[in-house]
Amino acid sequence: MRKSLFLTVGCLLVALGVSAQIPALERVEPMFWWVGMSNPNLQLIVHGKDIASRKVELNYPGVKLIAVHKVENPNYLFVDLRIFSGATPGTFPIKFTKAGEKTLMYQYALKKRDRSPDRAQGVTNKDLIYLIMPDRFANGDPKNDSVAGMREKGINRTKMFSRHGGDLQGIMDHLDYLKELGVTAIWLTPAVENDEPSASYHGYAVTDHYKIDPRYGTNELYKQFVEKCHAMGMKVVMDLVHNHAGTEGYTIQDMPMKSWVHQWPKYTKSNFRDAAVMDPHAAPSDRKQMLDGWFDHRMADMNENNPYLQNFLTQNHIWWVEYSGVDGFRLDTYPYNDPGYMAKWAKDVRTEFPRLSIFGETLVWSAANQAFFTEGNVVNRGLDTHLPGVTDGVWKEAVYDALNAHEGWTEGVNRLYSVMAQDFLYKDPTKNVIFLDNHDMSRFLSVVGEDFTKYKSGMALLMTMRGVPQMYYGDEILMKNFSNPDGLVREDFPGGWPGDKDNKFSPTGRSVKENEALNYVKTLANYRKNTPALQTGKMMQYIPENGVYVFFRYDAAKTIMIAYNSREKEQEVKTERYAERINGAEKAKDVITGETIDVSKLLLPAKATLVLELLPKSTH
Amino acid sequence: MRKSLFLTVGCLLVALGVSAQIPALERVEPMFWWVGMSNPNLQLIVHGKDIASRKVELNYPGVKLIAVHKVENPNYLFVDLRIFSGATPGTFPIKFTKAGEKTLMYQYALKKRDRSPDRAQGVTNKDLIYLIMPDRFANGDPKNDSVAGMREKGINRTKMFSRHGGDLQGIMDHLDYLKELGVTAIWLTPAVENDEPSASYHGYAVTDHYKIDPRYGTNELYKQFVEKCHAMGMKVVMDLVHNHAGTEGYTIQDMPMKSWVHQWPKYTKSNFRDAAVMDPHAAPSDRKQMLDGWFDHRMADMNENNPYLQNFLTQNHIWWVEYSGVDGFRLDTYPYNDPGYMAKWAKDVRTEFPRLSIFGETLVWSAANQAFFTEGNVVNRGLDTHLPGVTDGVWKEAVYDALNAHEGWTEGVNRLYSVMAQDFLYKDPTKNVIFLDNHDMSRFLSVVGEDFTKYKSGMALLMTMRGVPQMYYGDEILMKNFSNPDGLVREDFPGGWPGDKDNKFSPTGRSVKENEALNYVKTLANYRKNTPALQTGKMMQYIPENGVYVFFRYDAAKTIMIAYNSREKEQEVKTERYAERINGAEKAKDVITGETIDVSKLLLPAKATLVLELLPKSTH
Repeated sequence: MRKSLFLTVGCLLVALGVSAQIPALERVEPMFWWVGMSNPNLQLIVHGKDIASRKVELNYPGVKLIAVHKVENPNYLFVDLRIFSGATPGTFPIKFTKAGEKTLMYQYALKKRDRSPDRAQGVTNKDLIYLIMPDRFANGDPKNDSVAGMREKGINRTKMFSRHGGDLQGIMDHLDYLKELGVTAIWLTPAVENDEPSASYHGYAVTDHYKIDPRYGTNELYKQFVEKCHAMGMKVVMDLVHNHAGTEGYTIQDMPMKSWVHQWPKYTKSNFRDAAVMDPHAAPSDRKQMLDGWFDHRMADMNENNPYLQNFLTQNHIWWVEYSGVDGFRLDTYPYNDPGYMAKWAKDVRTEFPRLSIFGETLVWSAANQAFFTEGNVVNRGLDTHLPGVTDGVWKEAVYDALNAHEGWTEGVNRLYSVMAQDFLYKDPTKNVIFLDNHDMSRFLSVVGEDFTKYKSGMALLMTMRGVPQMYYGDEILMKNFSNPDGLVREDFPGGWPGDKDNKFSPTGRSVKENEALNYVKTLANYRKNTPALQTGKMMQYIPENGVYVFFRYDAAKTIMIAYNSREKEQEVKTERYAERINGAEKAKDVITGETIDVSKLLLPAKATLVLELLPKSTH
Repeated sequence: MRKSLFLTVGCLLVALGVSAQIPALERVEPMFWWVGMSNPNLQLIVHGKDIASRKVELNYPGVKLIAVHKVENPNYLFVDLRIFSGATPGTFPIKFTKAGEKTLMYQYALKKRDRSPDRAQGVTNKDLIYLIMPDRFANGDPKNDSVAGMREKGINRTKMFSRHGGDLQGIMDHLDYLKELGVTAIWLTPAVENDEPSASYHGYAVTDHYKIDPRYGTNELYKQFVEKCHAMGMKVVMDLVHNHAGTEGYTIQDMPMKSWVHQWPKYTKSNFRDAAVMDPHAAPSDRKQMLDGWFDHRMADMNENNPYLQNFLTQNHIWWVEYSGVDGFRLDTYPYNDPGYMAKWAKDVRTEFPRLSIFGETLVWSAANQAFFTEGNVVNRGLDTHLPGVTDGVWKEAVYDALNAHEGWTEGVNRLYSVMAQDFLYKDPTKNVIFLDNHDMSRFLSVVGEDFTKYKSGMALLMTMRGVPQMYYGDEILMKNFSNPDGLVREDFPGGWPGDKDNKFSPTGRSVKENEALNYVKTLANYRKNTPALQTGKMMQYIPENGVYVFFRYDAAKTIMIAYNSREKEQEVKTERYAERINGAEKAKDVITGETIDVSKLLLPAKATLVLELLPKSTH
């Protein structure tokens, strides 16, 4: 295969061996690796002009060259290594030789693994996740706002789809704020390079899987960010995109082989129907379109059945954990991925990092559809996904219903009760990430019509129900807006940029109401942080009565009673029905006000939620 | 325990040893049994004035008296027998002796099992079930309209909650009508004795588990009814009520022990929340009220944790199968029963009759909640229900949505698509009974606003989708009405009573439109009856497009294409999208009209459904 190939299949350019401008040895990925991984195998992807015409040589104790794969595109080699358990950290050259030409050389490093206990810790129901779009939170380093050679130029904060200049340094500068708020884990939307010509702030069109976007910082800074978080007692969640990649990335611009991505005779979008994945009656063409159809013109749909691609992705993800020490993964557009590969992926990653947490993005219509994607659900399927948790959008919709809709047998507050009852569907529902909003949907405050009591009730439910709670940046300072267009829910955090008129990171920059909201969230978050019953405690719920929903979180040490009045009028609730959990307690501490109240009956304002710590008799 | 006991616990009378009027040996149940059952154990319940003061003696080869249990009420004995495999059919006396008193004797018969192949056949997806309330279908024997000694007197056809006089003979007189319609199985609401003072036609307040209600006929006639059905190629489903019993039954009027039924300090209704059964977070008090609360003042909630009651019910049900040869069981109010007992019950019954079909009544809000009750769903539960199927009310609601509601992502016709996709939840969804209405809900015709096209589409979906289709008597002649009050959906079948003005059993008694409806149902039912692809064939469905839902049923011999246009306007649909299932066919037979049409595009009137048998190319 000496000639470059140009194949135009429909409107999709399949480009093989196109890049005349690439050097003879452009890159080797993963750039380095470690000794002592569970999986001894490593597959290097080597990219360079006509690299396939060269031989590969290496010589290092404990490392064996197993195979060299030539593929359709002569600009690639896939090199299989085995790293034996006796190998010691060190560096060795990999030589690419060709008769009559100068030998090319890559210094490959095998590093020592960092086994510090605060790396890859896992983000669990003990945590509170705070989701940040790094372009929109804080600009800590104006020097990287515009980076020479990148396709999207400069910043423009007046345009929602332009870059705004937020970066890793900006987040690092405000970790105190987050810690004080009670946050224990930070999830960034993808921070790896998105060298797309427009809307590159978005992050989900990855163009370099091994490189932090220079507008955010460097790989080294990302590692420092993780380490600083760990030092402050916070964790980090990395956002991964298996399903697609930005069309400007090197593996798409100059594909190893046609089957690297899903090719269609003409551009074909996904049908966005998770049902077609789980449906035993699904038409194969519907299922194929769901899994292999493209998300967007500029996001190539990766062919996860290609074993080279599988290695490329899996190794990249393992590389980031071992390199940076991140604690968990959020998996973008989970249902659109190949189920078999994702199951293997999860198994492989969990084998390397048993504590690492993983949750998949699933935006589906029912708990059953969500649960389909989680581990242990094997009725009639012959496949275990090995996916511990999902983003619990069904819980979110149920909370919206509980706050906004009239009660019916399974509507309004009864929907929330009914959805929680469906936890029987999960092997472990406490692995689910619960949330009121994120970067893809309307801000919670707008969803509840800017009703402050509903806002507080939603936050109270978020902080007290089962699962891993996740906030979206700025919800605590009453940021609002609807998801159409998306940009509106991705406004900058006021005060994150030098010269911002308002600085909402500071109490004095916030209005009275914003301070009240932030303090409400902070009080609950910090109470939760210090109350294992709200983290890992059991949950017991009661069938709502007169629109009042009561549930308990409890362990041997404490019992927390939560009561939400979904009706539009104040109600007095006698609590004898809950005797089996109140267990003789007569008094309780209102977690928000700190007041001690009588628990025999509760006065619940319209739409309000009480969070009460029951006080044992002896402390009365 | 010589004295009679009267215990008033709250408002519920717990009556032990009350019945001064009962004879010294009132009854022994089961009245007879069989040799050669899988389970060698048999527990007789013996009722008689002070029977516990007597000794029990018997002597028959192969039968051993294992134990005699005295219980709280001296009017009962529970006698454990073991019937060894060597036992031969025959009769032997069971003696109840007491010093100084005359010996009482019961002639116990052990019969030979009838192993004819058409007994206990199972009702499957090859069948079409027709549901009849026996009081409301046809009065074949006016002599049994009023039975001396029973609490409800006479008949009054002008009152919806009075008895109307329908009976087994009436049904037997119209089996030709049903057979011609295409029915292959008849489900009667309970035909055993309901000697309640009012609304006894209802059937779910059983007062004698071993006796056909004399207003319907005799046990012997019931057996003849089953045999006649079998001879005509139809099957019979018996309706069982485990959960409760009429308060006038002997075991309730004179309970063996207080724990025979669920006792409450004051009358306590069930909370009717299936969620409380499956909810891992359920408050024990909610769960208890769901399972142990009463359905109604006149329906005692049976304590299925009582081993004597377990034996009483299980043996009764096995007795009816072996006695009459019925082919399947429908289990009333399934979620209200004790899960552990019901699992054991299903296992025990299926061990005796492996082909017998069983489906439970579940009226719940989601496929997941339905599937919870079916066998194989063991995520996090540690219990397999062994229940093959359920009444698929979620399918019914989805069809209503498909016919009546506007389409949304998962609304309207997309709800039906989405619910079918959830079949991954079941071990075997083809065991589910699908239906458009029954005796507890509004008539289908009324649900669709008496729109005849919607009516036909609903019937077409019922006859072509997966599962066991079930009709409700009279739907084929356009009977209508809403479920509130219930009685209105339980009107008499016109022509079933001597002297009825109209006779809808006859074409000449029906209006043109009624004949059109009946012929539509009949054509589809008989086509289904002769088309294995619609019975046991695979199903393949496509994501609805422009409100058009297309699915296929197919096997090696035939492919049936069903297309439903949910929009309010006629649409022309190109079929190239379905190429993988149309598989080159160019023509199809319209199953209703018999016409041959071109399948490359279909003309679908508003709200209409086409049922098309694809014709292989050679037959064009």
